[in-house]
Amino acid sequence: MAQTSRVALGLDFGTESVRALLVDLDGHERGSAVQRYRHGQITSHLPGHDDPLPEDFALQDPTDWLNASAKAVRTALAESGIDGQQVIGIGVDFTSCTMLPCLRDGTPLCQLERWTKEKYAWPKLWKHHGARDQTDHINDLARKRKEKWLDRYGGTIGLEWFFPKILETLEQAPAVYDAAEVWIEAGDWYVWQLIGPERTDGRPPRSTCQAGYKAMWNSRDGYPSSEFFRALHPKMADVVAKKMPGVLLAPGQCAGELGPLLAKKMGLVPGIAVSAAIIDAHAGVPGAGVSEAGTLVMVMGTSSCHMLNAKSEKLFPGVAGVVENGILPGFFGYETGQAAVGDAFEWLRQLCGREFADLDRKAAKIEPGAAGVLCMDWLNGCRTPLMDGGLRGAFTGLTLAHGPEHLYRALLEASAFGLRWIVEVLRQDLPVKRFVATGGLPHHNPLLVQIYADVLGEPILVHSSRQGPALGAAILGVLAAGPEVSGFTSATAAITALARPPVTQRSRDALTVKPSPKNTKIYDSLYKRYRTLADDLSKRRRVIGP
Amino acid sequence: MAQTSRVALGLDFGTESVRALLVDLDGHERGSAVQRYRHGQITSHLPGHDDPLPEDFALQDPTDWLNASAKAVRTALAESGIDGQQVIGIGVDFTSCTMLPCLRDGTPLCQLERWTKEKYAWPKLWKHHGARDQTDHINDLARKRKEKWLDRYGGTIGLEWFFPKILETLEQAPAVYDAAEVWIEAGDWYVWQLIGPERTDGRPPRSTCQAGYKAMWNSRDGYPSSEFFRALHPKMADVVAKKMPGVLLAPGQCAGELGPLLAKKMGLVPGIAVSAAIIDAHAGVPGAGVSEAGTLVMVMGTSSCHMLNAKSEKLFPGVAGVVENGILPGFFGYETGQAAVGDAFEWLRQLCGREFADLDRKAAKIEPGAAGVLCMDWLNGCRTPLMDGGLRGAFTGLTLAHGPEHLYRALLEASAFGLRWIVEVLRQDLPVKRFVATGGLPHHNPLLVQIYADVLGEPILVHSSRQGPALGAAILGVLAAGPEVSGFTSATAAITALARPPVTQRSRDALTVKPSPKNTKIYDSLYKRYRTLADDLSKRRRVIGP
Repeated sequence: MAQTSRVALGLDFGTESVRALLVDLDGHERGSAVQRYRHGQITSHLPGHDDPLPEDFALQDPTDWLNASAKAVRTALAESGIDGQQVIGIGVDFTSCTMLPCLRDGTPLCQLERWTKEKYAWPKLWKHHGARDQTDHINDLARKRKEKWLDRYGGTIGLEWFFPKILETLEQAPAVYDAAEVWIEAGDWYVWQLIGPERTDGRPPRSTCQAGYKAMWNSRDGYPSSEFFRALHPKMADVVAKKMPGVLLAPGQCAGELGPLLAKKMGLVPGIAVSAAIIDAHAGVPGAGVSEAGTLVMVMGTSSCHMLNAKSEKLFPGVAGVVENGILPGFFGYETGQAAVGDAFEWLRQLCGREFADLDRKAAKIEPGAAGVLCMDWLNGCRTPLMDGGLRGAFTGLTLAHGPEHLYRALLEASAFGLRWIVEVLRQDLPVKRFVATGGLPHHNPLLVQIYADVLGEPILVHSSRQGPALGAAILGVLAAGPEVSGFTSATAAITALARPPVTQRSRDALTVKPSPKNTKIYDSLYKRYRTLADDLSKRRRVIGP
Repeated sequence: MAQTSRVALGLDFGTESVRALLVDLDGHERGSAVQRYRHGQITSHLPGHDDPLPEDFALQDPTDWLNASAKAVRTALAESGIDGQQVIGIGVDFTSCTMLPCLRDGTPLCQLERWTKEKYAWPKLWKHHGARDQTDHINDLARKRKEKWLDRYGGTIGLEWFFPKILETLEQAPAVYDAAEVWIEAGDWYVWQLIGPERTDGRPPRSTCQAGYKAMWNSRDGYPSSEFFRALHPKMADVVAKKMPGVLLAPGQCAGELGPLLAKKMGLVPGIAVSAAIIDAHAGVPGAGVSEAGTLVMVMGTSSCHMLNAKSEKLFPGVAGVVENGILPGFFGYETGQAAVGDAFEWLRQLCGREFADLDRKAAKIEPGAAGVLCMDWLNGCRTPLMDGGLRGAFTGLTLAHGPEHLYRALLEASAFGLRWIVEVLRQDLPVKRFVATGGLPHHNPLLVQIYADVLGEPILVHSSRQGPALGAAILGVLAAGPEVSGFTSATAAITALARPPVTQRSRDALTVKPSPKNTKIYDSLYKRYRTLADDLSKRRRVIGP
């Protein structure tokens, strides 16, 4: 078959919906469909039950993942006229750490009659925040025991990660913990379903990406030790050995072939290569056409994830994760992030009851500095570098003369200052030479990208694909298919061919946002004030609570 | 005549309009009318001219004061059926420091053909902010010279006061300064017009209230010395002697009798006693029925002015003014204030595009502490105790879960914390035993008064009159009429009779807002956080600018 007759399928599982993307091996997007999950985020009560959920709960229904993805694939195939036979590989990116307890045969506990009313039996969405105490406990214990793995996570593990969520269930609903035969990331669970659990001998594929970034695993030492887990809770001593069976595979490695059950449901044929999963944001790196070290890929959406591949392993306080082969084979992948970006803009828009078009237009007319308004963008805590989900946002410098557009501009600037802080932390030890923006936000918000460029004093390439993670997932499907099927002899070759980096100088210029030296100079001094405010707010919290 | 057949007239000159209130000597409001000034605040360009005014300008037209007050009085008389013959005294309260240059015969310079296009020849409204540099200059020089009067103003004089406004004109438009034969407060100018300048021998009545609070005058030492003014600017050496002729009179003292010209214009008869003027907020003290020491009268509106009468003179850093006989005869009057109160609430309402009914309803359901949002209410700087108009407001503790109602509640709480700070400063040396709220806000916003009571841990009496300053002015008219006419042998007797304090226990309860001990305890710790935030924000400003 010609390259154009063969396609890869990328499945991008977001918080509210899944996107199916069909792309040919020259990088042309051939078909695409988005399907919302029937139950979306489950935050108020379980489907079919009235008991209210606690405030910090965010769950999902695994049936939604299967149904919505099947529908999206069928729609994308139908609308593009592509036959299921043309698909050579499937890649899956997923929010993380979204995770669930299930049986050894892959059945989610929440689907068993006995557990359907038990909230702890349901998949916890990445943003589920029920495990605050457990996170503190794990961090305290790890520091006390001087656990080596802690250094790879900047000295602090996060509230949204894998083991805090397990410990929460163990403490709050021990019967659920006991009944869980397998604890697994949702992305891994989905790949397992694609293959068919009956064909994996009870050993589901697990991605080194999810394991490395969210479950304290690395290739040399594996997961934290049994001693550590025993000290955490006696019943957790054997959690890895007994309740986390599986085979660890890097994204792009073949996890198995598509099984008949889901092939039929999706309108595909059995036997298609399926890649190990990847975290949604991380898929944005190949999806942005980046296969080299030293380029910061900024996946900007509800929150932002800024990823960097490097040749060496450096441990930084405040950098959430460094994982070998965590993003692309052959590199150490560094993950940093900002917890509220698009979310924060939407929050302000709603707070002020305005439209983005109006805010953008007015904010663009305001000089750098937002007429004295200075914002701290910690509306969902500070991910990198302070790793403290309990930190809060702020606006200072307010007068009666300020309107919504001043607060909005100050928020965009704060977001840029937060990014600059992250870049400064990384540059202590690693080269950061190039900046590529991807995700939904850069296309919708040119003012934001200009402010980012101005604050960094660096040009930013806005990647042309609006489906970065889905495209990255599709590329992993191509890699999983192997060189004999795809014709690509390296990851770089596949990434370059499919993710269509700008090839001519002309198009490169068109997509590159250049900094204004005049504005960069102004922002240099405003950034110092942002850092002072950060010091004040984080100190105050430590002294007298949130 | 019976008490009920005789009435007093209070004229309350606000920023946008004047209110005329007719009240009988038993305290029954008989008639009332409000008339807007034709030109309102003059902030964009002079009437009949196109040249834009500078941003910090706020002027008024003296003709508006005369016309609007005449119309208001005629309307109040007509609608109440009261005959002009029944009026025994007139009191005038006025915004301050609103001031103007005029000729010795009382003609405002701005009414002379030669000066009508010259912005500096027009009356400057209290909120005119053109004199920043001049205010700094006066403060610097006073500190350098260790001027004794500076201590009476908490160590700092304000941007909106009398002499900064004169110096601004001298520096920016020296010809106007030269042409000005008399510099005078607007309230004094209006009283002068009531009497008829031709009947005052070129010596206009000047209120000790306006002079004391806004022009650094006191009864022992008079105005600042000629040496001080010479050092400030050589041409100002003789400003008091040459350009500020007049007779200083306390509010309630008779400044003269109503002359035929304005009597006719207003539908009154000549010969009615006219009191010396008083600052609008200060008129709220008698207007709230308060004639004793130790009661804090909180005049709450766009901004708030909190006034206290005491038996002794204490000098506090941060307390804007202490003036003997400044509010009521026989007391030292202390003035403190919050620069943005109703203004700030309106700002937030507009920022969020909501209605107050909606904000009030939702904010009332939120627990003390506004779900972690902490506000600094310095949206128009900090008046008492930091005396720094350049300080800015802030919101901290923000998360994505907060809505407009959280910010609104935090703002109400911040306003209450600001008040508590003022009370703590005063209580260092003076008894503050009782709290009376008056002005427009307390009636419209019961949630605010409850929060004030909770934060102070004190009951607050909400005065029943919605026209506090106008009623206070009317009472001064009664005092000016003298005991033989009014029948009242003391100020206390007149205030008690006219300002109708609640007489029965039943009505007292109805009007008193009591603190919730549970909430007071919560606010005790939140108040500490407010003060810490105040420290941080005021320090940061000093170190690295606004």
